[in-house]
Amino acid sequence: MKDQRLETAFNPRSIAVVGISGGLISMGRSYVEHLIKLGYPGPIYPITAKESEVLGRRAYPSLKEAPGPVDYVICCLPAAGVLDLLTECADKGVKVVHLFTARFSETGRKEETELERRILERVRNLGLGLIGPNCMGVYHPKAGISFAYEFPSEPGRLGMFLQSGGAASEFIYYARLRGLRFSKVISYGNALDLDESECLDYLAQDEETGIIAGYIEGTRDGRKFIKSLARAARIKPVILLKAGRGRAGSASAASHTAAMAGSLDIWRTAFRQAGVVEAGSLEDMVDLAVSFYHLPPIKGKRVGVVGGGGGISVLSADEWEEAGFDVAPLPPEIETLIRTRMPDLWQGWLRNPLDLSILPLDATMASLSGDILKMMAQSPDFDLVAANIIIGGPFSNQHLNVHIQRQVQDILAARREGSNPVAVVLNTGTLSVEDFQDGRMRSLAEAVQALVPAGVPVYAETSRAAGAIIRLIDFFKRRSSLIPDPGEEQA
Amino acid sequence: MKDQRLETAFNPRSIAVVGISGGLISMGRSYVEHLIKLGYPGPIYPITAKESEVLGRRAYPSLKEAPGPVDYVICCLPAAGVLDLLTECADKGVKVVHLFTARFSETGRKEETELERRILERVRNLGLGLIGPNCMGVYHPKAGISFAYEFPSEPGRLGMFLQSGGAASEFIYYARLRGLRFSKVISYGNALDLDESECLDYLAQDEETGIIAGYIEGTRDGRKFIKSLARAARIKPVILLKAGRGRAGSASAASHTAAMAGSLDIWRTAFRQAGVVEAGSLEDMVDLAVSFYHLPPIKGKRVGVVGGGGGISVLSADEWEEAGFDVAPLPPEIETLIRTRMPDLWQGWLRNPLDLSILPLDATMASLSGDILKMMAQSPDFDLVAANIIIGGPFSNQHLNVHIQRQVQDILAARREGSNPVAVVLNTGTLSVEDFQDGRMRSLAEAVQALVPAGVPVYAETSRAAGAIIRLIDFFKRRSSLIPDPGEEQA
Repeated sequence: MKDQRLETAFNPRSIAVVGISGGLISMGRSYVEHLIKLGYPGPIYPITAKESEVLGRRAYPSLKEAPGPVDYVICCLPAAGVLDLLTECADKGVKVVHLFTARFSETGRKEETELERRILERVRNLGLGLIGPNCMGVYHPKAGISFAYEFPSEPGRLGMFLQSGGAASEFIYYARLRGLRFSKVISYGNALDLDESECLDYLAQDEETGIIAGYIEGTRDGRKFIKSLARAARIKPVILLKAGRGRAGSASAASHTAAMAGSLDIWRTAFRQAGVVEAGSLEDMVDLAVSFYHLPPIKGKRVGVVGGGGGISVLSADEWEEAGFDVAPLPPEIETLIRTRMPDLWQGWLRNPLDLSILPLDATMASLSGDILKMMAQSPDFDLVAANIIIGGPFSNQHLNVHIQRQVQDILAARREGSNPVAVVLNTGTLSVEDFQDGRMRSLAEAVQALVPAGVPVYAETSRAAGAIIRLIDFFKRRSSLIPDPGEEQA
Repeated sequence: MKDQRLETAFNPRSIAVVGISGGLISMGRSYVEHLIKLGYPGPIYPITAKESEVLGRRAYPSLKEAPGPVDYVICCLPAAGVLDLLTECADKGVKVVHLFTARFSETGRKEETELERRILERVRNLGLGLIGPNCMGVYHPKAGISFAYEFPSEPGRLGMFLQSGGAASEFIYYARLRGLRFSKVISYGNALDLDESECLDYLAQDEETGIIAGYIEGTRDGRKFIKSLARAARIKPVILLKAGRGRAGSASAASHTAAMAGSLDIWRTAFRQAGVVEAGSLEDMVDLAVSFYHLPPIKGKRVGVVGGGGGISVLSADEWEEAGFDVAPLPPEIETLIRTRMPDLWQGWLRNPLDLSILPLDATMASLSGDILKMMAQSPDFDLVAANIIIGGPFSNQHLNVHIQRQVQDILAARREGSNPVAVVLNTGTLSVEDFQDGRMRSLAEAVQALVPAGVPVYAETSRAAGAIIRLIDFFKRRSSLIPDPGEEQA
């Protein structure tokens, strides 16, 4: 049975936004704007006595005056107004209230903590569902619901639950650049009523969600959460970032979402036992999500690496091996192909990683490097192909641009014609506006624009690609040891 | 005594470029182009029988026909032409020859290895100096000498020696984006005559070089190199990236620069004993170089962290601590400042990291957050201040832009008025051309453009900033324990 609070929050028939101030930035006004921009199809009721219209939508001085039923309320009132609002919500037949409102138990103050307790009591007495307080609420692009500016409007398969709304939007902005799109995202804050376990259970059951990622500072019920983790990780990949790992971070977590950070050892043991993939940082979680999103369940660790010149080949071999990959020997058929076309090349060069920079900078290179990449993508001797795109080398901007464009076409062709997954390592760098005018960096940005929408996983560094993909391989290996595949069950 | 080969290569009175082909990409032609673009003031003699002029410079059919003396020759001939050229060089009075020419011992073939041996023999007999073979040569912006397109023309304090020319240009392009500029760079390839130890010795003595970074695949004389390392690291920071660490990487190194990669344990012991800072990857070496370039010798590990919202504050506390920093308590005078201006804030919030996202989004925030940053930069309770700039939060693109601009101004003001060094964590992401049009990412790129030229160290992630800066602190701590300061010597 799916959680009815989340079912309503993700698919409300109508939404009221309460608490719209006249300030420079009004969160209430922003929520209305997000709903309009993402094309939420149901009625939107801005509730404010100060304005008759908010962003072209008729406003109402109170909830009860909204002309139709209201399923879902987004509350941006100050803390003092929440208890009364809850009563009004119950009178109006509201099912779920999201409290963006903050300054409750996270303040550590007695009065605010007591108010939070009374809110929970009232919610329970009135039979309401509550998300938050102190959170951003839900993002469900398919239903036209969002909690921040410029979240993608197209839906995808990544479902998320995050205790921090800031971490949620930061993640979504960077993940978007890498081609990730979202099924349903919940920022759940202080977890007063709806908690992290219930969010996770919901996403595990949700058909729109293929991969789950989460950010968690603490839990009030560790046992419940561990059970949810184990259940979810058997059904889909679950990637978690535990925040508040050290002394200072735990203390910050307490004042941020009133979270009890708990012992890191216990968290890690729980993650390992459940088969959860642990992320080390927000950026690492993006790399992991990119891997699970764009790559199939890779079964082996034999990687074929191509491109990037001599030094980069040596370094990338080191980094793939250090992450646990086998930089496997070049298959004989690829050796033969190269020998036939380039009889002059020496034996030592014929190896993995393949340093293509040594090919003549002419049509030979153009056709041979594409053929090599294709054969690597088709070879049963590799489980994964990694292509390095670099900006160094002997090229002027103009030549580099042509060269990179050709590499991109080769990569896309290899993906179409080969069965091995292909990952790309390419670093657009710490760009300034001025740097971006530069042809060299622009060529990389053009490559990203061709690769990412085609579903190619693009990583900024080999160590990041390797570190993320090895955990993907380990996740599926562990799961296959737990769950016999259908063929085995038949036998 | 400085190495005379390098003295000549970095400051030649005239340069001849030999081996200019008619192909789409001619390395010889590119070398001439780099010299012209960087404004090399001496005579440039393109040597080719096929053209009377190369890029507007009169060309000569042979070296001896060059109308003036030639100090330095850049050779892009095929391997078979090198022995004869060396004789011509000696006849012309050339001092140093740089062999871009490759395909010698790195091929592993007997004939090519024998040719390399004969080249060394002839160089020694003729009293010539040799750089390479199989390398890019030298980059000395102050003298107008470069080996790739779009290397910065302004000089700086970072000196480098790299066995791989590709790694060299890749490093320089990315380091440039972070505000690094170069004194002298040597790509030394197969190290047939001039070797890595001599490059390092030279940079250690070079007055233009304040920091040394190097990329090394292998050495033929480990003892000599260890001595050079220890000498250099007592004088200036030395950052080294050892490539060819694993099985596949070592094998690649052998076919790349004929390098004997050697045991990683021995390398690491040598680095540790010499006090060399080891980089884990090319990207890590950029982060380390940024730290040594833009930061003073930081003495303690107490970091004050500010900005980024609740979740990012928790995560950054974790990452600074995990790298070995002390996320020290907020000094009482900063608590007092905040309490006076914001009496309503709760005790728990008054901590390090300081989550400024909770301040009202108005003039209060604008002035208070700048004052807090300034006090952190002035506080004797911190050794370092780290400012997070994020793109999440409640802002529309337009508001975000104003908000980030203000943060940048606050950071620059805090640097001017405080004595603590300030590092910035800001991730411009994996940008595509389209993404860059986006105001949100563009705001970050504008921040980079304001911060980097002002000499602010900007890192893409907290873990990278913390991982690099902790090694800077350790480097100076170790060195101060080796070298008594002048006061102590007096006592």
